[in-house]
Amino acid sequence: MSRTADWCQDSLHYVFDYETPKTLVIPHFGVGCVFRLTQLLVVLYVVGYVCVVQKAYQETDSVISSVTTKVKGFAFTNTSDMDPLFWDVADYVIPPQGDHSFFVLTNMVMTSKQMQTRCPELPGPSTTCVDDCDCTVGLSDPRGSGIQTGLCVNYSSTVQTCEVLSWCPLEIDTKLPERALLAAAENFTVLIKNSITYPKFKFHRRNILPHINSSYLKRCEFSHSTDPDCPIFRLKHIVSEAGEDFQDVALKGGVIGIIIDWSCDLDFWAGKCYPKYSFHRLDDKHPVRNVAPGYNFRFAKYYKTPDGEDTRTLIKAYGIRFDVIVFGTAGKFGIVPTIVNLGAALSFLSLVPMVCDWFMLTCTKKRDLYSRHKITHLSDDAEAESMSMGTTYGTQ
Amino acid sequence: MSRTADWCQDSLHYVFDYETPKTLVIPHFGVGCVFRLTQLLVVLYVVGYVCVVQKAYQETDSVISSVTTKVKGFAFTNTSDMDPLFWDVADYVIPPQGDHSFFVLTNMVMTSKQMQTRCPELPGPSTTCVDDCDCTVGLSDPRGSGIQTGLCVNYSSTVQTCEVLSWCPLEIDTKLPERALLAAAENFTVLIKNSITYPKFKFHRRNILPHINSSYLKRCEFSHSTDPDCPIFRLKHIVSEAGEDFQDVALKGGVIGIIIDWSCDLDFWAGKCYPKYSFHRLDDKHPVRNVAPGYNFRFAKYYKTPDGEDTRTLIKAYGIRFDVIVFGTAGKFGIVPTIVNLGAALSFLSLVPMVCDWFMLTCTKKRDLYSRHKITHLSDDAEAESMSMGTTYGTQ
Amino acid sequence: MSRTADWCQDSLHYVFDYETPKTLVIPHFGVGCVFRLTQLLVVLYVVGYVCVVQKAYQETDSVISSVTTKVKGFAFTNTSDMDPLFWDVADYVIPPQGDHSFFVLTNMVMTSKQMQTRCPELPGPSTTCVDDCDCTVGLSDPRGSGIQTGLCVNYSSTVQTCEVLSWCPLEIDTKLPERALLAAAENFTVLIKNSITYPKFKFHRRNILPHINSSYLKRCEFSHSTDPDCPIFRLKHIVSEAGEDFQDVALKGGVIGIIIDWSCDLDFWAGKCYPKYSFHRLDDKHPVRNVAPGYNFRFAKYYKTPDGEDTRTLIKAYGIRFDVIVFGTAGKFGIVPTIVNLGAALSFLSLVPMVCDWFMLTCTKKRDLYSRHKITHLSDDAEAESMSMGTTYGTQ
Repeated sequence: MSRTADWCQDSLHYVFDYETPKTLVIPHFGVGCVFRLTQLLVVLYVVGYVCVVQKAYQETDSVISSVTTKVKGFAFTNTSDMDPLFWDVADYVIPPQGDHSFFVLTNMVMTSKQMQTRCPELPGPSTTCVDDCDCTVGLSDPRGSGIQTGLCVNYSSTVQTCEVLSWCPLEIDTKLPERALLAAAENFTVLIKNSITYPKFKFHRRNILPHINSSYLKRCEFSHSTDPDCPIFRLKHIVSEAGEDFQDVALKGGVIGIIIDWSCDLDFWAGKCYPKYSFHRLDDKHPVRNVAPGYNFRFAKYYKTPDGEDTRTLIKAYGIRFDVIVFGTAGKFGIVPTIVNLGAALSFLSLVPMVCDWFMLTCTKKRDLYSRHKITHLSDDAEAESMSMGTTYGTQ
Repeated sequence: MSRTADWCQDSLHYVFDYETPKTLVIPHFGVGCVFRLTQLLVVLYVVGYVCVVQKAYQETDSVISSVTTKVKGFAFTNTSDMDPLFWDVADYVIPPQGDHSFFVLTNMVMTSKQMQTRCPELPGPSTTCVDDCDCTVGLSDPRGSGIQTGLCVNYSSTVQTCEVLSWCPLEIDTKLPERALLAAAENFTVLIKNSITYPKFKFHRRNILPHINSSYLKRCEFSHSTDPDCPIFRLKHIVSEAGEDFQDVALKGGVIGIIIDWSCDLDFWAGKCYPKYSFHRLDDKHPVRNVAPGYNFRFAKYYKTPDGEDTRTLIKAYGIRFDVIVFGTAGKFGIVPTIVNLGAALSFLSLVPMVCDWFMLTCTKKRDLYSRHKITHLSDDAEAESMSMGTTYGTQ
Repeated sequence: MSRTADWCQDSLHYVFDYETPKTLVIPHFGVGCVFRLTQLLVVLYVVGYVCVVQKAYQETDSVISSVTTKVKGFAFTNTSDMDPLFWDVADYVIPPQGDHSFFVLTNMVMTSKQMQTRCPELPGPSTTCVDDCDCTVGLSDPRGSGIQTGLCVNYSSTVQTCEVLSWCPLEIDTKLPERALLAAAENFTVLIKNSITYPKFKFHRRNILPHINSSYLKRCEFSHSTDPDCPIFRLKHIVSEAGEDFQDVALKGGVIGIIIDWSCDLDFWAGKCYPKYSFHRLDDKHPVRNVAPGYNFRFAKYYKTPDGEDTRTLIKAYGIRFDVIVFGTAGKFGIVPTIVNLGAALSFLSLVPMVCDWFMLTCTKKRDLYSRHKITHLSDDAEAESMSMGTTYGTQ
């Protein structure tokens, strides 16, 4: 045989000889029990906790969502401050287009017929004056209402304040009605249409479920107990589910989250994917550690007078902003997470023999016998002996 | 030697003696083949599926995104119901500021010169009346249009209905034009600017790619086949890519999703991160199991009459809301997922000897020989024998 | 004994006999060291990198968030183009309701008293004409401003252009002021209220932290160094933190991201969960490869003339859109990721003996001795010999 052939054969041997550990079988019932029991525990953990409870064999994906909302209802107000007014959706829903976030006006401070002109400041520690020297031309105090003209004028018969350039008359927002103007808003309803997608799984769904027909939709109203699938919500119900009183929130405004949870198990044997609604107040209602509690903003309606001059109606709008927040994670059987989790569990199975060996070599009566058969201590004597035995030993 | 020194030496032995399994090498080609083959399968799975297909060695991050949109185009309408009108962006895009969600008005029911006053209800089963007894003062039926005054008045020469306090004249929204008013909207274009960030990888990108110059941007128009990188979209093209006919959707309104997929492989050897556009209809177009199909909302333009009275033009706006939905997951090589996935694969490698042992001990001709050499059965005889052999056995 | 009993006993043996590998203990200090060292390295990696640095033992969840914003400040403008004007929040913040995205107007091109009528086109290569033949009735060029009437009329004393039906007079948006109109907007402040939830961990928090009281909130202003927890931001500060000059951005507009990072470690021993603010410019400011740099949009205010005709004021609004982007991932100890990561690490521990065996059998002086004791080569001789020894061998 040539050298190359030799080398080849050696390599082949190296590649295709199978090396397997020598083992010792011990017919001890106790040790066997410990062995099978620990194995069982690991398997139970994997099957029970990882697979059934945590569903770790699943791939996950996050939801993407689109929401449209439509409020219905009208109200009639008749207070001493204002003319009797009829309010419909176009008047009290801002912005009007029914996005995932919509605002329902419930209270307001309205300042009509404002024009760009001059008027005395609202009285306050930094705005009252005795004569023109107390006012500075061009001063614009961030806490004030406009640019000072340098004049000190009569605010009322008793008080003098600096004159400002501003939209006049100035808004007096301390006169907030004590009862919400649109208290009737509690009976308004909102229809929420929500369509979601899990792009990784190409899964689409709408919150109007297949078994719902349009006659049901015309009369239903959401309730956790009786109508959990109805997408029409009474505003009062939303606010009370969030743990608040509607009239309280309506007075100063607030932000309520309508939370739609689309957590889904998309495996065919589970096959359930329904929206779950919950409601939370999102702003901080406690007046402590809070600037500007409640929720309000200012907007204006602009007009031209017959002479072509600009005039506006400034509205400080208090109300409830409803934020529809959609979240969710879908899980579906995936080969990679399954492999990873099984692999990790297998690693723990490889710990089982260590536990059993320890038990066998310390807790059984015949531990010396087992130890002698299992473990060969290569002592110096053995080395000397084996040396003399020569090279045939290996293939004995 | 003192006792402590003894104990120390024992401990050292315990820590630094190396315990290794005794093994048996079997020169059986078949068994060797099975061994190498199963090993190969596991390695192939790891390299091929986990690494190449699923890229499980990557850490992932979710996209955060900012979108601005700008619609261009104008239209001219000349129908019998209305005066000839010219429409530009400020007229038909709501809200105007070009957010990730914008609405293009395509059809409308306009009710001009509404004022807060009294008028007869629209005829219907619950609103027609014979005399004042059929109407209740103050009744506000949610399906009606206002607060009843208790009078029964002439709606037309033949029909009498209850009078209501409301914005009058009432909107008659059943007279929706049969052809979309702004049919020309199909030729409007929208420029979508989208900038995204993967915060974990500090990766920023815009949908206007580096190789695009401004002269191309001035004339291009998105098309999957010819201009897949152009960020300017013709509305008709968007709707038809979503599988719908523009004029159909324009009539009653709808919600179309412009979905930008920024799934990226950020490893330097991949280095490709482009936006992929797709288009879907997000609302339910089927009239069955659907309340208020299509998409519409009401808004009003407020005016003052020369006498200072409030008047408004109520517009029930039908149109297409385009929601730009940005999603994506970026992956980049990460040491932890690599370790976890390799570790899990290694666990499976440890299963290979089990398969081979089983094959060797059941399917080979010399299985008895192999079994005798590999496995030592510690029977009761052996125990008795070993007992008599004394303590020297262990180091033999 | 019956056959069934036999079979049962065999099965029991199979189940409860414990099979354990025979091992060889080698008292070689070097090999022991290599063994313990590689073990230590794996353990160090697991504890140090996976657990401490990457916190791979944690489950994660993504944030859901709600934002309200409120801008404060006013400005006074007095330019040659316009009447002196006073601006407050209702005038320059669009949309007014203080969502997560708000726009502050800083510059504008205003076109007053537009009416639906006819006027000459703005001069340009495709709109100038010599006589009516150059204009086409009904032509609506997307780059033009309206529908051509077919007439060629005087634009100025020297230029003739085609007449169009449009909102007239046409907007001339090339006359953008060279200095931002509302330069004073840099001193406006914005209060950002942000409440977040990690639904998986039922964890809620607001960006107004518990230790902040309302007197501090009345006077504080955000600064990374001195007031990192104050939720009130000066617009100039936001823009300069994003690396831009406010007046530059104000001129042509831009999009600035206010990024709130809520990455949290919710384990009780960590217990820190604060918002971290950062600021980035999100649009592309480079005029190269950019259409319509900056940020602007058109909106209109609609009026009725005393005669009842529609007129509008078109505003091309330039300004800064601030997008409040909330992101974050919370981690909390979870049993499944812990198990998976420990399991993967254990797999690597099972590699340690392979390394040591290789070291022992190649690098030590007594490698032949160790090899002889550890490995039994089952050669053909051995097979023959063992054949003759009969079946008693197995239990010897």
